[in-house]
Amino acid sequence: MKRNILTVPIQKVEPGGASLRAQDLVAVEEPLQIRLGGSDVAITMRTPGHDRELALGFLYTESLLANPDQIADVRVDDSGAVIVSLVADIAPDIDARRFYVTSSCGVCGKASIDALAASGCAMLPAGQPKLSAGLVPHFPGRLREAQAIFEHTGGLHAAGLFNTGGELLYLREDVGRHNAVDKLVGAAFLERRLPLHDHVLMLSGRISFELVQKAVMAGIPIVIAVGAPSSLAIETALRFGMTLIGFVRAGHFNVYTGSHRLIA
Amino acid sequence: MKRNILTVPIQKVEPGGASLRAQDLVAVEEPLQIRLGGSDVAITMRTPGHDRELALGFLYTESLLANPDQIADVRVDDSGAVIVSLVADIAPDIDARRFYVTSSCGVCGKASIDALAASGCAMLPAGQPKLSAGLVPHFPGRLREAQAIFEHTGGLHAAGLFNTGGELLYLREDVGRHNAVDKLVGAAFLERRLPLHDHVLMLSGRISFELVQKAVMAGIPIVIAVGAPSSLAIETALRFGMTLIGFVRAGHFNVYTGSHRLIA
Repeated sequence: MKRNILTVPIQKVEPGGASLRAQDLVAVEEPLQIRLGGSDVAITMRTPGHDRELALGFLYTESLLANPDQIADVRVDDSGAVIVSLVADIAPDIDARRFYVTSSCGVCGKASIDALAASGCAMLPAGQPKLSAGLVPHFPGRLREAQAIFEHTGGLHAAGLFNTGGELLYLREDVGRHNAVDKLVGAAFLERRLPLHDHVLMLSGRISFELVQKAVMAGIPIVIAVGAPSSLAIETALRFGMTLIGFVRAGHFNVYTGSHRLIA
Repeated sequence: MKRNILTVPIQKVEPGGASLRAQDLVAVEEPLQIRLGGSDVAITMRTPGHDRELALGFLYTESLLANPDQIADVRVDDSGAVIVSLVADIAPDIDARRFYVTSSCGVCGKASIDALAASGCAMLPAGQPKLSAGLVPHFPGRLREAQAIFEHTGGLHAAGLFNTGGELLYLREDVGRHNAVDKLVGAAFLERRLPLHDHVLMLSGRISFELVQKAVMAGIPIVIAVGAPSSLAIETALRFGMTLIGFVRAGHFNVYTGSHRLIA
């Protein structure tokens, strides 16, 4: 069985500014391809484990399968995809619907981070900008204060775009984290500010692959989050030269990648 | 501008079992249709506000738009959809990719909860099963204990299927909440246990429309979560006769819908 957590090296920064090398456990995130009756139906970013059940549960809740009698075989092929074969007289209604599959820098994952680069995602500017390490612990509070000012509910995920002086430029909120980031990138797009090479993206929750991918597309070199990144978020940040900081709490924070942009 | 939070009536249950009628603020979740150059590109479940920016940010990070010069017009039509028109000589590469759009009981939202019923989602069994209110506060702890037993990281979302006696039948974890539920439903599907009319679904996080929809598909009449539900999660639970309980913390919990299944 594939591991669902992974140990990664991090730099742990303490309130006084002292930092030490440490290990952190992160949740594994990897793409899973689901095939039904010979057709690619979906790719979902998931934590490995119970992949056959995941595929069947997805197909059932999407009404593409009604009961186990329709299934001839469920297997995991060499590439890791789940292949669901149907009994002879069953043809699923796949053509009538379209599923989210992939895009140039979208849901593609570990095996194709290289393809992501080939299709338009550029490396982030090396070593630029610099950010004062002492400023990092203040970003979550500034995001929360801004949420309070706009009288929004704390039940929404927030994404904030800051400059490296710690000044908030945009705040966007949504029930979906990816939507909050899309709103923020859309605002910068409309104002012709892309790529955001001098900026910092602050997120209220955890960091998935999808959020790092959106930041790479927008050219944002520094991403800070209150929560933890997934394994694939870290790999993608490494690949594109992003500074990825997580678990910013009570003056402490973890640097997962790109510590060279931080100055004392 | 559309509201992004909503006040809903709830029943607040206290540690001793006393309950009172109260009001709660929930995040609004509604579907947004995005059209580009005359084609439906995507429906995303989002919190209203900054819809044009959301559409443009989505199209940009999906590489369907490169810069504002490609756009002739961005407007919100009468149905609330964002319509992005392109300048004459631009044709987006939409055919080459397929986006997640909809499914029988999938991403459809408020305007089409009725359609959801018409296409296969059945009403949950009225008034059954009964669940002891005194048991509710114990579900989160049992889920966490089970996560610890399986030596999983707390960084993963968990979904647990319980019987009304509070016994855990399945535990599944994932970086994506929807995947954890799909794994659990897939396990029940394989064992021919669907519909799960006598069961309780316990979730470690918040409750979105998508999670309620999956529970309805699996026939689960009682959903309990540590976090809060969205507006559309509540509306969908009401429509299908589900008991929806959230914010289970330190003996307190909120009943959003279907309190008739709870007994003292």
